[in-house]
Amino acid sequence: MNILDIINKTKRSEPLSTKEIKWLVKSYTAGEIPDYQMSSWLMAVRINGLTDDETITLTLAMRDSGDILDLSCINGITADKHSTGGVGDKTTLVIGPAAAACGVHVPKMSGRGLGHTGGTIDKLESIPGFTTDLPFSRFAEIVNETGFAVISQSGNLCPADKKMYALRNATGTVDSLPLICASVMSKKLATNAACLLLDVKYGTGAFMKTPEEAKKLAELMERVGNAAGKKVKAEISDMNAPLGKAIGNALEVREAIEILQGKITDGYLYELCIRLTADILLLAGKGSDEECIAMAKDSIASGRALGVLRRTIELQGGDPAVCDDTSLLPQPQSHYTIRASSDIKINAIDCEELGMVSLLLGAGRISKEDKIDPSAGIIMECKVGDKIASGAPIMRLYSTVCSDFSDAAVRAQDALNYAACRIATY
Amino acid sequence: MNILDIINKTKRSEPLSTKEIKWLVKSYTAGEIPDYQMSSWLMAVRINGLTDDETITLTLAMRDSGDILDLSCINGITADKHSTGGVGDKTTLVIGPAAAACGVHVPKMSGRGLGHTGGTIDKLESIPGFTTDLPFSRFAEIVNETGFAVISQSGNLCPADKKMYALRNATGTVDSLPLICASVMSKKLATNAACLLLDVKYGTGAFMKTPEEAKKLAELMERVGNAAGKKVKAEISDMNAPLGKAIGNALEVREAIEILQGKITDGYLYELCIRLTADILLLAGKGSDEECIAMAKDSIASGRALGVLRRTIELQGGDPAVCDDTSLLPQPQSHYTIRASSDIKINAIDCEELGMVSLLLGAGRISKEDKIDPSAGIIMECKVGDKIASGAPIMRLYSTVCSDFSDAAVRAQDALNYAACRIATY
Repeated sequence: MNILDIINKTKRSEPLSTKEIKWLVKSYTAGEIPDYQMSSWLMAVRINGLTDDETITLTLAMRDSGDILDLSCINGITADKHSTGGVGDKTTLVIGPAAAACGVHVPKMSGRGLGHTGGTIDKLESIPGFTTDLPFSRFAEIVNETGFAVISQSGNLCPADKKMYALRNATGTVDSLPLICASVMSKKLATNAACLLLDVKYGTGAFMKTPEEAKKLAELMERVGNAAGKKVKAEISDMNAPLGKAIGNALEVREAIEILQGKITDGYLYELCIRLTADILLLAGKGSDEECIAMAKDSIASGRALGVLRRTIELQGGDPAVCDDTSLLPQPQSHYTIRASSDIKINAIDCEELGMVSLLLGAGRISKEDKIDPSAGIIMECKVGDKIASGAPIMRLYSTVCSDFSDAAVRAQDALNYAACRIATY
Repeated sequence: MNILDIINKTKRSEPLSTKEIKWLVKSYTAGEIPDYQMSSWLMAVRINGLTDDETITLTLAMRDSGDILDLSCINGITADKHSTGGVGDKTTLVIGPAAAACGVHVPKMSGRGLGHTGGTIDKLESIPGFTTDLPFSRFAEIVNETGFAVISQSGNLCPADKKMYALRNATGTVDSLPLICASVMSKKLATNAACLLLDVKYGTGAFMKTPEEAKKLAELMERVGNAAGKKVKAEISDMNAPLGKAIGNALEVREAIEILQGKITDGYLYELCIRLTADILLLAGKGSDEECIAMAKDSIASGRALGVLRRTIELQGGDPAVCDDTSLLPQPQSHYTIRASSDIKINAIDCEELGMVSLLLGAGRISKEDKIDPSAGIIMECKVGDKIASGAPIMRLYSTVCSDFSDAAVRAQDALNYAACRIATY
């Protein structure tokens, strides 16, 4: 086995054998192939692609590079959910409890945010006392009791992916469907739930800019997941605007709780949460599509899903009272409201840029070591297509660590594409 | 300026600016861009190509990464010659003296052989006493006196190419027309002769496998050379069989001397030497194509070209008597003759493999530090298309360092594609 032969084959769009792919992943993870050879291969993959069979083999080889979780200690059917990353995406905080309230066990292993996208762990840790640093056995106990728990990714899951992702990030090889698929699916297959729901985003806040690209990735991930013996469903969802109104950790927890409290019963965020919950129930064989949608809605309307979240927060050391009084969440010390200086119509929102503004306000990390301001973030007072009268609020910026909002306000305003419009007042 | 932007542009087949290419070459040479990012860019170039403008800019940036020779101390018009590498290619030893005998000055800076191709320096150093390790001023004096001298590449010429070539070799990015062009032309432009003749090989012993590929590379190098203000001509030549009969250092010097002695006056090697010499004379403005061919032939037939070589060898410390008695060249201690075991017809020759056999016999280097056996090599007793009677010689293997020829003989025979044939004897 020879790395140059492997690079040359992919370079010439010739397929690699299973043996070659396994050797490549194993040798790179073991440090036996230098980064400069791996990055050359990754670029060949980025430009020439891989076949489905190659992508499946690569994914499984990456999954097998480290531990695979044993979920046999969790009762009943298990489901996991993954989003390809977005701005203001708090759906896990709704879907997990809602699916659990319908009898599916959701053992969620999640990551911290980096760059413009937030992480579920950071959101939950904004709840006073909440910890995601649990031993696996305790995590399994909580899932068995409430149906839902969240721990941070730990242990030796997919070391191949960790190493390859860092290299891809530095070599312009992130935006490759087979590499994205292998990265996401290897981790999810190592997490090892029986059902897997994928939320593939497209738009200004996502890797995939168009629904067509997102669909391709979704279908690829379904094929790979099925080949690995899992029940997999991938939804395509819109990330041309932040999901819901809130961006930032405590702000997003509040919005998720408001959905579970029944205070938000329409809009794209609510509809997506219902759709994704119903998808999990479908995968778990809980009924027809119609029945699963009804179950998902009822789990929220009845308060059962909020009950799951309340108990999970309590068992993970957090203050369960936040589920009834969101003012107990960290409150920002400063805020700034961006208002329309004339009558305008919002044509488009650069979602990724708003993620960067939120980061600037303290809600995110540029490097892994950065500390987060749980109170920081943005509340959107506009959607694409909205007309806003002169003087009315467009966005509200919040922060505790940051008191000078001038930079953030300029960038936030620049992230909007709007035009003058006439708002009839008679 | 940002390496990721540059990688991403080439990855998406978007053109780079002159500024970006200059920055890339400068930063990589200075060690400010790590190999794993450069190799990712090189693979993007290998797959997506570069525009002519980008290739020109890259070549000039690489040329400018180190010293550019000042040839103003050499009188008259200067010409340089480059071959893209082959097996048994001793043309420089004929063309240099022949062109010099016609009034063109040929200051030749050359390299040592590596892998299956030999180097002019190694060939000349097989002449007892010959040294290519001369100060530049002495080199220029010899060129001014005889018209021809050879020194080994030294000093700080094209450090960018040295670093990039080593990386390309390890990352599957050697076989790229723009990268081959930039590598060859940057060195030749730094060597700075006014006229440049390129001999672009195709076939089993060359990088380019077909005449079409070779033509593309030839045209690209002509465009780049012209853009840099040089007179450039590129010939396409056949490397589907070793050039001439001899492979190996002293053996090739002997064959070159035999041409200059007038002992070989036909065949592909002789014709190619005349063609290439005439090309140099054409570039130097010595006459029409017909006149230049006649001048080239006469320089050999008259013995003037041999006279140039004799005097150059003397001035470079070698024994000039070899020009009259080639038995003064190093003689191998052992030899082995491969004979036909039945009547056969030679259909094809794997020229690169014969280069490797010659290396195995001691004539070449696997790594830069290896010592060479000047006496070692192969004499071909067959050409493609020849019919050879059972028992007649096909090839003769020579070596001093190697006495067991069994491996070499098996590989040499395997390098031939032949079929049984009927040779009429009545």
